[in-house]
Amino acid sequence: MHLFDYLDSGNGYKVRLLLAQLGQKYDWTHVDIDKGETRQAEFLKRNPNGRIPTLQLDDGTYLPESNAILWYLAEGSRYVPATPLGRAQVLQWMFFEQYSHEPYVATPRYICRHFPADHPRRAELPARLEKGHAALAVMEGHLATRQFFVNDRYSIADIALYAYTHVAPDGGLDLAPYPKVREWLARVAGQPNYVQLLAVPNKAVAA
Amino acid sequence: MHLFDYLDSGNGYKVRLLLAQLGQKYDWTHVDIDKGETRQAEFLKRNPNGRIPTLQLDDGTYLPESNAILWYLAEGSRYVPATPLGRAQVLQWMFFEQYSHEPYVATPRYICRHFPADHPRRAELPARLEKGHAALAVMEGHLATRQFFVNDRYSIADIALYAYTHVAPDGGLDLAPYPKVREWLARVAGQPNYVQLLAVPNKAVAA
Repeated sequence: MHLFDYLDSGNGYKVRLLLAQLGQKYDWTHVDIDKGETRQAEFLKRNPNGRIPTLQLDDGTYLPESNAILWYLAEGSRYVPATPLGRAQVLQWMFFEQYSHEPYVATPRYICRHFPADHPRRAELPARLEKGHAALAVMEGHLATRQFFVNDRYSIADIALYAYTHVAPDGGLDLAPYPKVREWLARVAGQPNYVQLLAVPNKAVAA
Repeated sequence: MHLFDYLDSGNGYKVRLLLAQLGQKYDWTHVDIDKGETRQAEFLKRNPNGRIPTLQLDDGTYLPESNAILWYLAEGSRYVPATPLGRAQVLQWMFFEQYSHEPYVATPRYICRHFPADHPRRAELPARLEKGHAALAVMEGHLATRQFFVNDRYSIADIALYAYTHVAPDGGLDLAPYPKVREWLARVAGQPNYVQLLAVPNKAVAA
């Protein structure tokens, strides 16, 4: 398998973390978002929606969408529940992540790390951070009585939500008001074969 | 089963359409978004994220997130592929729908139908519609050589994408430049047991 990815992307990191925990080998190519490489013709042949991560499978198929990749890699493993309701709840939290969390937790971090203090996109921050706090409050409430998001067992729902939550302060989201979220972050970071966001995969190859 | 829903919601309609096609009976309660009913304490006990649709299962569990509900209801049926890659591709398009399509195809429709012409939220329209056209262009390219989104067979990926695409002109998105999308919309509307967006379910009960 060959992962097209951007090292600082939490969406890409989800896939790298799961691949490490599955012990799966893969080739890895860094695609530079900042240079617009995801919007160039060569990459658009791989994913017409112009986004990383995109995973090339062994049969040549390109699979985009981080959470769909997680599902593909994890189905049948310990990281996806065996019950229909458990699977639906994993998907519930992964759709929550993409719709109610990522635009308000990840995008502020992207803006803060990629645009100078006087850039017009900084004006988006207050409204995005307000919704980011709303997403964190939903997570805090859910974790009040749980160790992990679904069935009290580590799953790809935790991976999907961990990726940008653990670096939320980079975008100006203070995690101090969310002690249950912080305890859960520590539990995820304590899982076997955990890797960090900025750890370059072993088999990095030239683009 | 009991569906908490808002009649004009495309996300709710996805679930109603699938339930009709599965021939599944259910109770249905209209939750009035415009009166803020999804943000009131009684509803937040059902879904702390304050959104419809939310499906109450027969064991009492509340399942939110339209696309997770689709998966729960359709898994094992003809509406979800049998192969791992097919399932991942259905999820790929459902995550595309929630991240790259819904905010730019559904939200403009919501703004146009709920806010007067001089309302500040109308200022969001140009940027949203530009991304809405980008999403429609991705769909047009994919459908150039296909009848349906995955494995050339009608699935919950088609239901998820149809819900807001077929009413995109309500938000100012002209579908004329997308002939393959328009042909696909007609194919979906021609499926057995198709129901329309604003058709009130049979077993509507008081809130």
